[in-house]
Order: sequence, then C-alpha cells, then structure tokens
Amino acid sequence: MPSKTKPVIALAMGDPAGISPELTAKVVALPEVREAARLVVIGDRRVYAEGEKIAGVTTAMDVVQAGESLQPGETPIFVDLRHLDPATVKRAVAAETGGRFALANYKYALELARDGKADAVSFTPFNKRAMRLARSEYDDEIAFSAEVAGLVGPASEFNVLDRLWNARVTSHIPMAAVPAALTFDRIERALRLTDACMRAAGFERPRIAVAGYNPHAGDSGNFGREEIDVIEPVVVAAGKNGIAAEGPFPADTVFLRAKSGAFDAVLTMYHDQGQIAMKLMGFDRGVTLLGGFKFPICTPAHGTAYDIAGQGVASVGATWAALLLAAEMAARR
Amino acid sequence: MPSKTKPVIALAMGDPAGISPELTAKVVALPEVREAARLVVIGDRRVYAEGEKIAGVTTAMDVVQAGESLQPGETPIFVDLRHLDPATVKRAVAAETGGRFALANYKYALELARDGKADAVSFTPFNKRAMRLARSEYDDEIAFSAEVAGLVGPASEFNVLDRLWNARVTSHIPMAAVPAALTFDRIERALRLTDACMRAAGFERPRIAVAGYNPHAGDSGNFGREEIDVIEPVVVAAGKNGIAAEGPFPADTVFLRAKSGAFDAVLTMYHDQGQIAMKLMGFDRGVTLLGGFKFPICTPAHGTAYDIAGQGVASVGATWAALLLAAEMAARR
Repeated sequence: MPSKTKPVIALAMGDPAGISPELTAKVVALPEVREAARLVVIGDRRVYAEGEKIAGVTTAMDVVQAGESLQPGETPIFVDLRHLDPATVKRAVAAETGGRFALANYKYALELARDGKADAVSFTPFNKRAMRLARSEYDDEIAFSAEVAGLVGPASEFNVLDRLWNARVTSHIPMAAVPAALTFDRIERALRLTDACMRAAGFERPRIAVAGYNPHAGDSGNFGREEIDVIEPVVVAAGKNGIAAEGPFPADTVFLRAKSGAFDAVLTMYHDQGQIAMKLMGFDRGVTLLGGFKFPICTPAHGTAYDIAGQGVASVGATWAALLLAAEMAARR
Repeated sequence: MPSKTKPVIALAMGDPAGISPELTAKVVALPEVREAARLVVIGDRRVYAEGEKIAGVTTAMDVVQAGESLQPGETPIFVDLRHLDPATVKRAVAAETGGRFALANYKYALELARDGKADAVSFTPFNKRAMRLARSEYDDEIAFSAEVAGLVGPASEFNVLDRLWNARVTSHIPMAAVPAALTFDRIERALRLTDACMRAAGFERPRIAVAGYNPHAGDSGNFGREEIDVIEPVVVAAGKNGIAAEGPFPADTVFLRAKSGAFDAVLTMYHDQGQIAMKLMGFDRGVTLLGGFKFPICTPAHGTAYDIAGQGVASVGATWAALLLAAEMAARR
C-alpha cells in the first residue's frame, strides 16, 4: 500500500524506570511495524537513546521539537519533548518524574490523534504508582484519555490475545461492589461496545460468549441468581438486536471453549475472571485496547517489568502486537 | 513393595450414563495402577462389562457380592451390588436411577474405608443433577462423605494438577456471599488444612501462595480492603505457626508464578478464582481430593462428559492420577 495511506500511529514512551525505553526502541526497529504504519514516537530523545543502547538497535528518525508540524512518512518521526534527563532516572524505582514523563508523552499522543494528526495511539507500559505520584487523581488510562481526547460513548478496556478478545463489565472496583454493579444496562452496554469494537477491528459478526458470575454459572439458581435475573435477559435481548451473544456460561470452562475456537470473545463480569485466563494463555503476547474512543488506543497488557529492566531481554512481542492491532483498526476507519 | 503393604483402594463406579463405566474399566486395566494399589471396585458387574466393551479392555477380577468379606490381593475384586441393569440406562441422560447407582457405590466405598477395610476411596465422575434426582438434599461430595464416614475436622476440596495444589476458602456459594464469608477464622482454617493435607501427601513444608480477593490484590486498599483487613493478618499468623505461606498476591498472576515452580499450592478465596486457572492449565489431568477425612478421597476433576460417552475416546489420565494420589497418600498414613 502506498505510504500516504498507511495509518499514522502516535507511540508514547511509557515509564522510564522499567522496560519501556528498550521496548520502544525495539519495536520502532522492526521492519514489519514500519510496513504497517507511519510512526510518530513521543518522548525524550536521550531516554530513547538509552533504550536503543540497551536493546542493541538503532533506527534513523527525523527528530522534531514539541509543537512542530509533522509530515509522517517512511522514516519514523521522534517528537523530542526534552523533559527528562536519563541520568536522573533510577532504574526499577517508581518515581514522580517518571510518571510525569509518561503522562506528558501520552497526553501529546492523544492530542495528535484528537486533532486528526494521528490515526491511532499506542504506548509502552506505564507504572501506576509513578502515575499517581505525578498526578494524585490518576485513576486509569480510560479516565485520563477521556479527559484529554473526549469520548464517543461508553469506554472499556479490552484484552486481545491473538484473535481472542476479552471485555469486562466491571474492572477496578472492590469485589464486594460487583453484584450491585451488574445491572441489565451495564452488561448490555458492555456487550454492545464489545460487538461494535470488534466489528471496527474487522470481525463481521463477532461470536461473543458471556460468562456467568457465580460458580457453575449459578447452577440453576442454587449458587446465586444473577445469571437468571440479569445476565441471561441481556443475552436474549442482544440476540434480538443482531449481536451473536451466547451464555451465560460457567467461567471456569468458557475460556477453554473460546481458546478452541468456539468464540471470538468472552465478556466477563469482573476483572480477575478474564485476567486470570488471559494471562495464563499468553502473558507475554497480550494486548490491551481502550475501546470507545474516536481512534484505537493499544498497549501491551504486561507491565513495566522492573525486575528485568535494562537487561535488553524483554520480549517485544506484545508491543509489536499492540502496534499491529492499532494499525489494523486505524486502517479500517 | 510386597503385596500386603500396598494400600487398598475402594473404587466406586460413578454415573452410568456418561464416561464413568469406560473410565473405570480402563483404569483397572492399567498395570501401573495395580502396581500401586490393591483395588476393590464397587458397582454392577453388567454395567462394568459394558464399560469394558466400550474401552476395549478386559481384566481378570474376583467377583463378590454385597456384604461378603474381602481379601484384597493382586487380582482386583469387584463387589457386585447387582442394582442396575445397563439396558435401562439411557446414555447421556441424567437420571434418578443413575444417581442412585452412583450414590450406593460411593456409600459402600466410604463404609469400607470407614471400617478399615480400605485405605483410600476413589470414584469415577458423578453427575450432580442425577445425584439430586436420587437424593434431593444432595449438596456435594463433602457433605455426603461426612455423613457416611465422619470427619476428623474441617473438610475441603483440593484440586491437584501434577504437583500443584489448589484449595479454596469458599466454594459453592453465591459470589455476593463471599465477602462476608472471608473471615480470619475461615481463611486460617483453610490454610491450616491445606498445609496438613499436603504434608500428609508427602510435602515436607509446602510453599503456599495465598491469593488476594480484589483486583490487583486490592491495590493497597484502592479496590477493596479484604487483603489488608483479613488476608494478610492470616498469612502473618500462619508464618508464626510454621506454615510457609506468602501473600496475598494478585490472583491474575499468582498461578503463573506457581506454574513456574515458585509455590506448591495456591489458596484461593472463591471457586472460579482457582478453577479458571486449574482447568486452563490441564483440564484432562486434574484430580480433586477431598481432604479432612481419615482417609484420602480422590476423583478426576472433570465431569461425566455426556458428549463423548460410549465412544471409548475418554482420556483415562485424570482417573489414573486420582488413583495414584490416593495410593500415595494412603501409603503414607
């Protein structure tokens, strides 16, 4: 495909104390990534140079300063915000300076996409503690992204592993608060959003398995009634609206079925229900997609890996997969 | 080891409409199983003969009638209760007759062990619906076993996959009831029982990872306080009592660490937290152990598999593993 139709991806450098600098350098160096997208990397050139040194790669880039206009092409662009001296970064320590660095890069990337100068956003891992040190009200990527870039409708985090998607109705809330949060509206909204995002990613009619909430999906009401009272009615209503949803299925076998190809996605009721399964199936390869924005936002599902930072051994697989998913979704917009 | 010191295992035939008859025949035919234990199979000889036909195996056995005294040796004994004509069994249908058959076999096996005539009990899969049709108050294997055989102390179900154990603090209760059930006493009891059962199975000082309850193990209280208020105090107290417990750890990564060898067991707070992981790691090989009785009770973790019953394709792996674990634990008593 000719260069100018390739989507532009704004890639924000994440936490500087972990593996993000080396991952950024590694993924930019991959010819397959540059085949799929025009890259605009946002960070500090000196931190990036450290990443290149650790990763043992170098890539020719056009360096521009903050606010300069961009003309993305085959050669990646580096937007140098000049805001972090790598000599001040203490490896494997969550720090306010690191949080500020990652937030500034991410904000810049979101604004590029919001203003139509990029088609998708990606970022290397953040450290939540560092983010909170830099911005005490920081809750998660969705809230921050919504604030900066605006939302089309409801937003949700998806986990994508190879071709299998996982979405969840509730996420970062106490488990004791989950039952009250499992309303018809909320589950239906999550199901619709899953269907819509997957269609945007190229699934013609995604087959979505809906997990139950209770053990054995409630065992016909013996171990809880959410399946009967709320979840099943949502599945039935969704079917009438053209969504290929099935369930509710017992959570402890639904991923086995999905893995074997019976479904394209699993909608889970709470955080760990999906995370336990997705991480076991491929911790290193999983991608997190923030859905519900005007443009795709993709990041590796793994974290900053402080324990192996600076060694150059971090696998670039998930970062690569995140960029490819972002490029694929952006190309379909 | 000389024959008379080999443990005697009472093996009860499970639900006749699923894969239990063929699994029973298959596992009895394995020389490795007969090497490890003296077998007393309980069921109906005609149903067993059907299982042999499906499995394509035959094993020489000494057939005795209900109530006859047993002298277990190298040749397996079959206790023929003559209570089910296979012509009346409709394959892949949960039926009251099937539930009665499985209950009678299991009761007989438990009584043999209770009365010192067997050292361990094993059974091929039950169908819960059939059990309830036969006995409306049937709740689970633990309650029934406690009624027939008596309990030493608290009982619990363990899942064992290769060398990795999983125990849970709560099990077949609604998820909404879990927070109130996560008391200091209850978690501590589960941890002690896990430690004791694993020592009985040959672990010198089992390394037990305790899972958190909330996403990210509560994220320092941001997503729930059970970790801070209850779980961590239990772990600290257990350590003072010589139990090698660690945690609480985020549930979505603790099994990855356990799988890589960092722990011998994971204690989970609710049913699916462990079941999602254990089933993904090896659905066909997992064993369920009922701990807390005077003798080990082991069964395959999988179910009656009505969809493949009668085809002879069911994997005997988990049934085999269940018998070997029962034999190993019985030999250490």
